[in-house]
This record gives sequence, structure tokens and C-alpha cells, in this order.
Amino acid sequence: MNKGTISLAHGNGGRLMQQLINSMILGNFGNPILNRLDDSAVLPLKSGKKRIAFTTDSFVVNPIFFPGGDIGKLAVCGTVNDLLMVGAKPLFLSAGMIIEEGFPLDQLGRIIVSMKKTMQTAGVRLVCGDTKVVNKGNCDKIFINTSGIGIIDEKQDIGIARARPGDAVIVSGTIGEHGISILSRREGLRFATRLKSDCAPLTCLVGAMIKACPGAIHVMRDPTRGGTAAVLNEIAVSSNVGVEVDENRVPVANAVRAACELLGMDPLYLPCEGRLLACVDSRKADTVVRVMRKFSPGEKSAIIGRVVAAHRKSVYLRTSGGGARILDVPVQEQMPRIC
Amino acid sequence: MNKGTISLAHGNGGRLMQQLINSMILGNFGNPILNRLDDSAVLPLKSGKKRIAFTTDSFVVNPIFFPGGDIGKLAVCGTVNDLLMVGAKPLFLSAGMIIEEGFPLDQLGRIIVSMKKTMQTAGVRLVCGDTKVVNKGNCDKIFINTSGIGIIDEKQDIGIARARPGDAVIVSGTIGEHGISILSRREGLRFATRLKSDCAPLTCLVGAMIKACPGAIHVMRDPTRGGTAAVLNEIAVSSNVGVEVDENRVPVANAVRAACELLGMDPLYLPCEGRLLACVDSRKADTVVRVMRKFSPGEKSAIIGRVVAAHRKSVYLRTSGGGARILDVPVQEQMPRIC
Repeated sequence: MNKGTISLAHGNGGRLMQQLINSMILGNFGNPILNRLDDSAVLPLKSGKKRIAFTTDSFVVNPIFFPGGDIGKLAVCGTVNDLLMVGAKPLFLSAGMIIEEGFPLDQLGRIIVSMKKTMQTAGVRLVCGDTKVVNKGNCDKIFINTSGIGIIDEKQDIGIARARPGDAVIVSGTIGEHGISILSRREGLRFATRLKSDCAPLTCLVGAMIKACPGAIHVMRDPTRGGTAAVLNEIAVSSNVGVEVDENRVPVANAVRAACELLGMDPLYLPCEGRLLACVDSRKADTVVRVMRKFSPGEKSAIIGRVVAAHRKSVYLRTSGGGARILDVPVQEQMPRIC
Repeated sequence: MNKGTISLAHGNGGRLMQQLINSMILGNFGNPILNRLDDSAVLPLKSGKKRIAFTTDSFVVNPIFFPGGDIGKLAVCGTVNDLLMVGAKPLFLSAGMIIEEGFPLDQLGRIIVSMKKTMQTAGVRLVCGDTKVVNKGNCDKIFINTSGIGIIDEKQDIGIARARPGDAVIVSGTIGEHGISILSRREGLRFATRLKSDCAPLTCLVGAMIKACPGAIHVMRDPTRGGTAAVLNEIAVSSNVGVEVDENRVPVANAVRAACELLGMDPLYLPCEGRLLACVDSRKADTVVRVMRKFSPGEKSAIIGRVVAAHRKSVYLRTSGGGARILDVPVQEQMPRIC
């Protein structure tokens, strides 16, 4: 594959990106910590009885200001949520900014204030940073990398490979608002003007889930690039299980559904930035959903499917029409620079 | 200042960058950990009796391949060296790549292999990563962010604010090769073709320094953007001391000196990526230099000056002509995208 060039699909959370990660990244850097491919690395480094989690994410979203958020809020939420997805309490963030010469200082100020507010909500502190300025035309406005450190209670063992047949699959709310809100802003689509990105830090939501049912949550993952479909497939492959989802039960806002029909898109492939998918012991699933609904980013939480022992490594969708089909991972790039 | 725009000088390690950090970053995010502005944050999180250090850096160097290294090697060295500068043993790295659509996969492969080799030399492991692809023209080829985690032995207390009058100022070798090698490649300068970047991980060098004279090393800092002049000024301000440097004693390679004369540049403002400056208890300075010279990136180590109680917050240069002048921080951008 080294003869080709990078395409947008190498960054879309789908098949080409998986191939790139498997061949180039795991092929060269593979080690037991990296190979888990969870949203955060769990380090062989303990603070007291707590393990330390570490994650990184770069944000290149376009436009940088969008309904419901901006690149700064997104950069904090993305990394905080990745720490939460392995059951860690987020503590410390870094910020690495790459800024284009000529970028307005007032916009930078707005982004920074937005990061500050989101960090306060999420309960994390900025502890280190870096700023690079590149010549005009060498980057598009501003890119932000955030890395984060959190601590995991000794009892937690949450990971992409821990789903078990029988688990309930839960989503924390309506899917796809982030994708459609970015797209509507970028393409000037009128019909979706009231739609806001779901972008939010999930610190309180996840904290309450873990407190309510310690040990019952086996997998958590936020459906960002590649959306719900990509995450469900990652769970199926990593946990060596089948996943079944009822399309009717997946919460989708009317405006998102309308936008998808118009644009020929599927909400299950749209990215979210303030939602999570979880595989939970089925005996505790109703309790977990009840707890999740108490928090604003979890108000529309629902059980949308189940983990099964059949058709391992595949995801089946029971469609609203009564049929069933394989829900595959994305291949083509639908939306570059969505996060 | 929020009326203006970002200029290249906001990223050059000099006065405008300091103002930006003070007003926007510390003004909004200030906390006791961040405010220290050391090369790595020292976290209030311990692993056994060891403290944990955390740092981040984005790399946007142009060209991405240069004599003595490439953007991948640089991204590993930069973050590893920042951990070393607070006395930490580097352990774990993250890598966040932003890649332009159409970037050749074989070049990506070369960069990744270079990162892998440098990590092996430096004794660190990649534990998490992220890849974003942006549309053609939205970034220039590839940018890499690396963040890193290391552990600090309980006895070490190295920081930019710990220089004391009487300390010797040590540099680990000739300065400015990285700057001139990038510049010569970028501008096609013939005279400097044999010059290589000093880019190197300093793990062994720093480990030996600390082992030889535990407690005697008060400050370490690698002179990257803004060069030796910027670092000496940061030490003078943060430690509230004066610094005096003898120009004659500062090691400069002949090719760098020639290039500087031709281009009207001063080696003291040129960036290095495999050198360090240290303030060391003067009674131990000769021992430290002797140890440093045993390692290839430290072969030309030398005492170049001293920390004094006079002219606090200022750096004086005793020039080769016998005079003395203030060595100020850089103001104008000399070299964008040097790291």
C-alpha cells in the first residue's frame, strides 16, 4: 500500500483508516498497551491503587464556530470523553495549537474562553501547552491537539474487547446532531438551522453511570468519526461477538432525519461529540438508562440492541421495515474535517 | 491586543509569544502547575514515590525531511527532551498526525519508521494516537503532535525558576546546527550542505548527568525556538537572577558561523533540537561537563557563563571584542516552521 497517497477516507473512522492503523501504526509501534485500541491508553503506571489513562486527539473541524460549539469546546470534549470511555476520571489536559498567520486574535480569544468554560464543566485543568504559527496558506485557520490524563478506579475494567453475549447496547441520546450541524453550517443548508451540535463533556453522566452500577458497564465508546455504525463494528470485532440493533429504537431528531433523507445519508454513520454507546450487563441495563436520563446529554438514553454469540464480528440492523441487514463500516469519506 | 491578528512572531519563542502566553493562556487557564512554564508539567499525581511529568509539542517543520532528521524524528526528540528537562525519565508518547489529502504513503512510512527508531533510542513507547486527514491545501503535507509522560525521582527538583547566583551555565555542544540545516535545505544554500541538524534524544546524556551529580543540576532547558538567547532570558526572569555569558566560550561550528555571517544572523538566536542548557552548582560543574562529553550529543559540552545576583532578569554577553552588551529576547520572526 506504500505506493499510493493519503485519501480523505484514511481519516473517516472506516475501513481504510483501520487498514492504515493496522499496517503502519500497529505494524511499527505495536505493544500491549497500544494494541488495545481503546479510546485511551491504560498505562502500567499507578497512582496509589488507581491506574493512569492517557489519550490524544487533534481537531481540524471546519467551520471553527458552529451551532452548539466551536473547535475549542470540541477539543476539550473529545479528549475528556475519550478518558471517560475507559472509566477514567479526567484530570489534566494539554493543548497544542497550530495557528495560521493572520488569524484574528479576537477569534483566538473566543476559542480560548470556550476551552476554559468547557474545562470547568468537565472538571479538568490545563497543565501544559504549545503554540506554533505557520505561514498564511500553510494551514486552514487553526488546528488544536489536546491530550489528557485521568485515573481509573481499581474496580473498573471497561474496554472495547469486554462486550459479552447477553449485554444490552445503550445509546445516550439522539445521534448525528454534530454531523448535520457542521454540514448545515458548511453548506448553508437552511432547513437545519435550529439544529445544534451535541458536543458536550460527559463527565457527570459517566460518573453517575459507574457509581450506580459499578462493574456492570463492560464497554463505553463515543461514536465520533464513522458514527454509531463504526463503533458497533469495532465492538463486534474487538470483543469477538455479534451485535444486533433495532433501527426503530435508535433515537434520531426529526431535523437530522429530514436532513439525512434530503442528502442521502444514514444517521448511523453520522458523528456525535457528546454521546456514548455502552454494552452493559442486561440485568442492570434499565437501571443504567434510568440514571443516564437524569443528565441533559443523556435525556434520550435508550437500549437499542444486544450483544449476541451469533454472527461474530458482524453488526445486524433490524430495519424499520421488518427486515435485517448487515450494518457495515464506512468506506467512502462522507464528511472531512467534521471534528 | 484582541484587535490584531496572529503573526509569525507569535510563534518564534520571543517577546510576542510570551505576551500571548501571559495574556491569553495564563490569563484564562492559570494554575500552579501551568504557571511554572517548565518544559514539562509536573503533576500532583505520584506513582509510588515518583512524580509524573507531562508535556506536549506540535511539529510543523518545513521541509519535512532535512539533513540529520525528519519531522518524525524531531517530534519524538522534542517531546522526549522536554520530559528530560524537568529531570523525568521519559516513558510513554502519544502521536497525533494531521495529514494533507494526497500525501504520499511512502513518505508517511519513512516518517513512521524514523519515529519508531528514535523511540527505541530514547527508551519510550507509543501508547496512543490519532490521525486526521484534511482536504488538499488545508495543511502543508503533515503536522505531528507528540505528548509525553515520564516519571521524576523523588530527589530531583529541576526547574526554570531554580537557578541560583554562583551557578555555572553549561551548554551541551555547538549551537544552531538545526536552524542552519533547515534553512540551508529550504533556501538551497550550497555552502552549508555538509551541515546536519543536531536533532537527537538526550535520554542517555541527561540520565548520566543526574546520576553523576544528583541535586547539583538546578535548571535544564533545550534551546529550541528563540535559541540560546531566549532560554537564558527565561532563566533570568523565572529565577530572578542575572546571567552572564562569554561569547568566546560558546561552541559554534565553522559552517554555522559562516552561514550566520552571510545571512546576518546570530548563532545565539538559532534553534537546536538536540542540545541543552543547564545551570549547575559551580562546585560540580567540571564533573558534569566531563560526564556530558562522554556522549555523542554532549561531546562539545562547555561552561559558557555564570548566574549572578546583579542585573536581575537580564542576560549580559561578554563579546569576543572584549565589550559587554545585553542579550535580548528575539522580537522579529527569523525562521517560521523551524520545528
